[in-house]
Amino acid sequence: MTGHPEPRVPAYRRLTVDERRAQLITTAQHLFARSVPEEVSLDEVARRAGVSRPLVYRYFPGGKQQLYEAALRNAADQLEHCFDVPADGPLSDRLGRALDRYLSFVAEHGEGFTALLRGGSVVETAHTTAIVDGVRRAAAQQVLRHMSVRRPGPWLRTSVRTWITSVEAMSLLSLDEGELTLAELRDYLVELFVAQLTVTATHDRQTARMLRAASALEPPDGRVASLLERAIGALAPAPVDS
Amino acid sequence: MTGHPEPRVPAYRRLTVDERRAQLITTAQHLFARSVPEEVSLDEVARRAGVSRPLVYRYFPGGKQQLYEAALRNAADQLEHCFDVPADGPLSDRLGRALDRYLSFVAEHGEGFTALLRGGSVVETAHTTAIVDGVRRAAAQQVLRHMSVRRPGPWLRTSVRTWITSVEAMSLLSLDEGELTLAELRDYLVELFVAQLTVTATHDRQTARMLRAASALEPPDGRVASLLERAIGALAPAPVDS
Repeated sequence: MTGHPEPRVPAYRRLTVDERRAQLITTAQHLFARSVPEEVSLDEVARRAGVSRPLVYRYFPGGKQQLYEAALRNAADQLEHCFDVPADGPLSDRLGRALDRYLSFVAEHGEGFTALLRGGSVVETAHTTAIVDGVRRAAAQQVLRHMSVRRPGPWLRTSVRTWITSVEAMSLLSLDEGELTLAELRDYLVELFVAQLTVTATHDRQTARMLRAASALEPPDGRVASLLERAIGALAPAPVDS
Repeated sequence: MTGHPEPRVPAYRRLTVDERRAQLITTAQHLFARSVPEEVSLDEVARRAGVSRPLVYRYFPGGKQQLYEAALRNAADQLEHCFDVPADGPLSDRLGRALDRYLSFVAEHGEGFTALLRGGSVVETAHTTAIVDGVRRAAAQQVLRHMSVRRPGPWLRTSVRTWITSVEAMSLLSLDEGELTLAELRDYLVELFVAQLTVTATHDRQTARMLRAASALEPPDGRVASLLERAIGALAPAPVDS
């Protein structure tokens, strides 16, 4: 995990190759989390890690681009695991737990790092885009696994992928605006999932079956029941005297 | 509009500066719509437009990058106008009409051109990203205008922006997979809007007021009523004998 103000491994001890590599990646992630990649220099990475610039190049001969991709790959591995929560309990609770992890990660890595998800970085390439797309695919697969769906048809596949995009978009927008709390975002995104899959179920039998099976496991006083009650209230005509 | 196999203006007539510029942009859009930008060459643009390569450079001294940005700007102008439909009738009909335009545009411009929306193009820069982001902001503003909302709070602003992202994501995913028709996509996205705003309304008074006002204008046998009926059916417990 990044977010520590300084690398965790003290520089005075001789590091193994793996430790040094991990230290440089952590240092780079820390810098990429706070600045756009264009403003991060290898000199700064070397200085913070307490090593020489040539040593950074020995580990990452491709320079900043390679270090950036390694940092991104490392972050992608962590993001992919967010949706890999234990497969027990109601679906809405599992999604809530996964979103807690995902949103904490996004909050922790800050604007600079997540700029990549938004595009617009000068170090973005087809390769880095493939890494980001891989995170989206992996997240969608985890969600389908939680729904016990092995072979999603086009409706279900597209719905889940689109919801993952909404998770990403809301995280980034909220990071910019900072007006919604992580708990509000989490609850909203779980409810958006339920609402979106309900719409999909009205078009697609596979989704309808899945939704029925998932609903049966939700507690009668749980968040899905609460959402339904509030939604019906929101859609009801206004009282005449209001 | 692009999509024509050859530029519309015959090459034997002497074109004005504006006509030539428009012809080169149309030709470029046509090529960018069918190939990733990396594979489009200025020689090909010149050949198709029936002009010399130096002439292309006279109009676009920045070469392919500049021509690409001009083509993107032109497409962005058209995309921004998609949501600028007449402000009459129920909200769901307005959104349906806007989506008809938007989805036709995406279908017409093909994978190559829309690759930019997905990121991963080597010619992507902060500048082109700003253009794409401008389209998203403009679309969100048009939607808010149709809802007669002048000062959206964070919930409403974030919801509408997130829905725009869903429109984009579903368009691109469906372009890849090709299994849903444009009419299915349009209806689904209108319904997703209603569902998402309903969820938002359960958290936010401004959205709740807007949703009530919009619902009052929907016909009793219209698509919102139909969605609600189908959604309640989808969420109802399965019959015991099924």
